Amino acid sequence: MFTERTPRVAAARRLTTRSGRDRADRFLAEGAQAVREALDWSERGAGPVFELFATPIAAERHAELWQRAAAAGVTTSLITEKAAAGLSETVTPQGLVAVCGLVDIPLSAALTGRPTLVAVLSEIADPGNAGTVLRVADAAGADAVIFAGSTVDPHNGKCVRATTGSLFHLPVTRERDVDAVLAACRAAGLRLVAADGYADQNLDAADRAGDLAQPTAWLFGSEAHGLSEQVRAQADTGLAVPLYGRAESLNLATAAAVCLYASARAQQAR
Amino acid sequence: MFTERTPRVAAARRLTTRSGRDRADRFLAEGAQAVREALDWSERGAGPVFELFATPIAAERHAELWQRAAAAGVTTSLITEKAAAGLSETVTPQGLVAVCGLVDIPLSAALTGRPTLVAVLSEIADPGNAGTVLRVADAAGADAVIFAGSTVDPHNGKCVRATTGSLFHLPVTRERDVDAVLAACRAAGLRLVAADGYADQNLDAADRAGDLAQPTAWLFGSEAHGLSEQVRAQADTGLAVPLYGRAESLNLATAAAVCLYASARAQQAR
Repeated sequence: MFTERTPRVAAARRLTTRSGRDRADRFLAEGAQAVREALDWSERGAGPVFELFATPIAAERHAELWQRAAAAGVTTSLITEKAAAGLSETVTPQGLVAVCGLVDIPLSAALTGRPTLVAVLSEIADPGNAGTVLRVADAAGADAVIFAGSTVDPHNGKCVRATTGSLFHLPVTRERDVDAVLAACRAAGLRLVAADGYADQNLDAADRAGDLAQPTAWLFGSEAHGLSEQVRAQADTGLAVPLYGRAESLNLATAAAVCLYASARAQQAR
Repeated sequence: MFTERTPRVAAARRLTTRSGRDRADRFLAEGAQAVREALDWSERGAGPVFELFATPIAAERHAELWQRAAAAGVTTSLITEKAAAGLSETVTPQGLVAVCGLVDIPLSAALTGRPTLVAVLSEIADPGNAGTVLRVADAAGADAVIFAGSTVDPHNGKCVRATTGSLFHLPVTRERDVDAVLAACRAAGLRLVAADGYADQNLDAADRAGDLAQPTAWLFGSEAHGLSEQVRAQADTGLAVPLYGRAESLNLATAAAVCLYASARAQQAR
């Protein structure tokens, strides 16, 4: 049984940091749901799953996944509880971790084929928030999610977990150059709409005016500071989620849910 | 300066448990935003703020709040960092904590005056989720939020924090008897709509049919198990947030945001 000092486990442990992931071109998907989605993703030919590590207890509990991985040619190895804890970014390690190729694809590839709904995450620092927005974007039927600028890495363990599998469902891109992201969205025929609590126009008014049915790239900024002036200035419009009560704001994930679903509904109704 | 052993601080510390809060009829609001909202709430005559504790650093940083509390007749006391940590339910104590009367009011009082949008939280265990739903309900202009059955206490520190002040903005009720909650909502003229990922009908179809403009009590269940069969059976209808992509579900807070905003928008458009 592999321990935390076994070279293959030590190499996998380096994937808990962004620099380690980028150097190896691999990341970790932890837990039964993520592993199942990773195997589906691999079987669709979307990307490779290289290894599956499990504690004896987890391998037995998820015997079907364990066998499925082995049958698919994935190297399966039993590891100690301590080794599993070292590969986990959660408080309660799940004892089951797959080593996958990175999911992200080039910006141009993510935006091919007339996209109608795209989510752009700009300067979002919290991995749980970013992952939840990715999950919402998937649910709303988005064509792609772009992690722009210094936004957290989608392959971060907490982000992977928050996506509950959605990371493997739709095209995901990382692009440091925010201007390049906005230019590519515009070139793909998308209207750039800044989600901006301070915007003069509101979402429901835009909905009634029919604006939301247009192909749209929603731009979401950080929880703390919203979108940068640089991004806002390049947007075609800014829309605020209307506050009908006395709350000062919504949090990022709930605001993104309202915005993305408003567009999805308007686009479906066309 | 008060320490964690000073009787008034020790008494306040007992408010970090539900039984302690219910026995004293008081709870803790931590951090500058919550304290400000609590003082606003008190000045509107909605409920009492009894005490304000602060570390010397926090009292200086929030001098305006400190003086405002004292001017309003709130007992202000300086406490040590260790005492502040004992009153905090967060990893990074903010050093500023108000002792307030409980916010919740009787069910009948919460539902007076022809409510049109109410959120019912049934069996929700996670205080952060419950607080986020309360915040979303406030933003969507809900008339009341009902914490039903064994749902977490709205006065729980993590819940208070997640509401970012919304706890003080609208009528909040705790009622263990879920059947009584549903009966009261129905008697108030509200249509009982179960948010249910497995429902046959979907939200956008109901929206197009004009159903969402009716006065509505949205029923939200636990993240893990959804609504109980008992609650679902009593609802007038169940609606699923449509999944246009490949995500299996939305999390509670984002689903609640989409549902409550769909109703708010439909009701505003009437």
